Amino acid sequence: MSYELFYWPSIQGRGEFVRLALEAAGADYVDVARERGRGRGVEAMMRLMEGPDLKRPPFAPPFLRAGKQVIAQTANILCFLGPRLGLVPRAEATRRWAHQLQLTVEDFIVDVHDTHHPIAMSLYYENQKPEAKRRARFFTEERAPELLGYFESVLQRNPGQRGYLVGRSPGYVDLSMFQIIDGLRYAFPKMMLRLEPGIPGLVALHDRVAQRPNVAAYLASERRLPFNVDGIFRHYPELDA
Amino acid sequence: MSYELFYWPSIQGRGEFVRLALEAAGADYVDVARERGRGRGVEAMMRLMEGPDLKRPPFAPPFLRAGKQVIAQTANILCFLGPRLGLVPRAEATRRWAHQLQLTVEDFIVDVHDTHHPIAMSLYYENQKPEAKRRARFFTEERAPELLGYFESVLQRNPGQRGYLVGRSPGYVDLSMFQIIDGLRYAFPKMMLRLEPGIPGLVALHDRVAQRPNVAAYLASERRLPFNVDGIFRHYPELDA
Repeated sequence: MSYELFYWPSIQGRGEFVRLALEAAGADYVDVARERGRGRGVEAMMRLMEGPDLKRPPFAPPFLRAGKQVIAQTANILCFLGPRLGLVPRAEATRRWAHQLQLTVEDFIVDVHDTHHPIAMSLYYENQKPEAKRRARFFTEERAPELLGYFESVLQRNPGQRGYLVGRSPGYVDLSMFQIIDGLRYAFPKMMLRLEPGIPGLVALHDRVAQRPNVAAYLASERRLPFNVDGIFRHYPELDA
Repeated sequence: MSYELFYWPSIQGRGEFVRLALEAAGADYVDVARERGRGRGVEAMMRLMEGPDLKRPPFAPPFLRAGKQVIAQTANILCFLGPRLGLVPRAEATRRWAHQLQLTVEDFIVDVHDTHHPIAMSLYYENQKPEAKRRARFFTEERAPELLGYFESVLQRNPGQRGYLVGRSPGYVDLSMFQIIDGLRYAFPKMMLRLEPGIPGLVALHDRVAQRPNVAAYLASERRLPFNVDGIFRHYPELDA
């Protein structure tokens, strides 16, 4: 099956968690807003999303079109793709557990995002800088250690799983955790220097995922957008004190 | 089947979205942390959650025990309970849609929570009051109208569904939307006075849900905790300008 991913074309953002899954599985997909031509580009994405004909409209990108279905919410998209792309084990309880972890990844993403946007998404960072500094301090000192520690403990409770969070090969949750570690290293290098010795399992997971042939090829390609200060993970040195 | 819900005993919080589903369906359940005795109370909840034996530990309450499974993350719990309690239609694509809406409800909850805690969950409201005022202004003027408008438009696109968001009888998404409207009326009465004329469908949905016999009985019982200034929906008049 061929998939169409709809997401902002210039940032990794939430779309990256879906891109990583599609790429790792070697899926056939189009990153619609990054292409040109008929039915492509940001305008096409907005037209679809805001069109009055869509009975089940997304609230925001990313969303995925698979046949007649239009599916939104990152974790929901991954929950749909996981079984289809072989990125989650078969047992129903394990799939539910994977989704539970993915929703905790989502909480993590919100916390990262809010370090630079604690007041409003519609304001520039420059207009919420004092608040951002304060929130980022709690993130780097409390929240990030707590969340990373949680995922590290999940890894440690699964010695039979070859260093992956779910299953014995890298699934969508592992790909998302790779992205979290990668993004935190970009945005908060000082914090990660301090925290990484305490999360050896997650660091190893990150490296193992990055070396998977499909992932490595993707990361080296132009399809992988660079981190920048428009996405979720932003490097503002003043927030990484 | 009998369920055990684990959540903080003195607030509605996120647990309330699960309580409403269990109550509306007349399910057999124990609200563990609100009971006394062996294996009951907050201590029992913390012991289970933080115990080293749990292979699939929750990051935080609420969580549900159903037989041998321990399931966390509010939307994930509802995704599990929905089919079992008859609170979501049968078709797979419709269940995915319901879950997508529930995840957007989750986004809404985070936004409500962050009006009074924009900096850190570990700080008292009093210690983040100026930031809260600023964030609340964006919530009441931008974010809440946007989210409520989205859900109203979802309702309007489903004329055959008798005024419910998903399906033809109130499902877990409708119960959650009841709680959002109810909570916003408590926390932001001025804002709701202004916004309610624009969301007649959601207001009618709220009233219709509240009149369902099981829901009405629950709301009139002592099991329904009152809103207070410790939960997600808090009434601080200065945030409802």
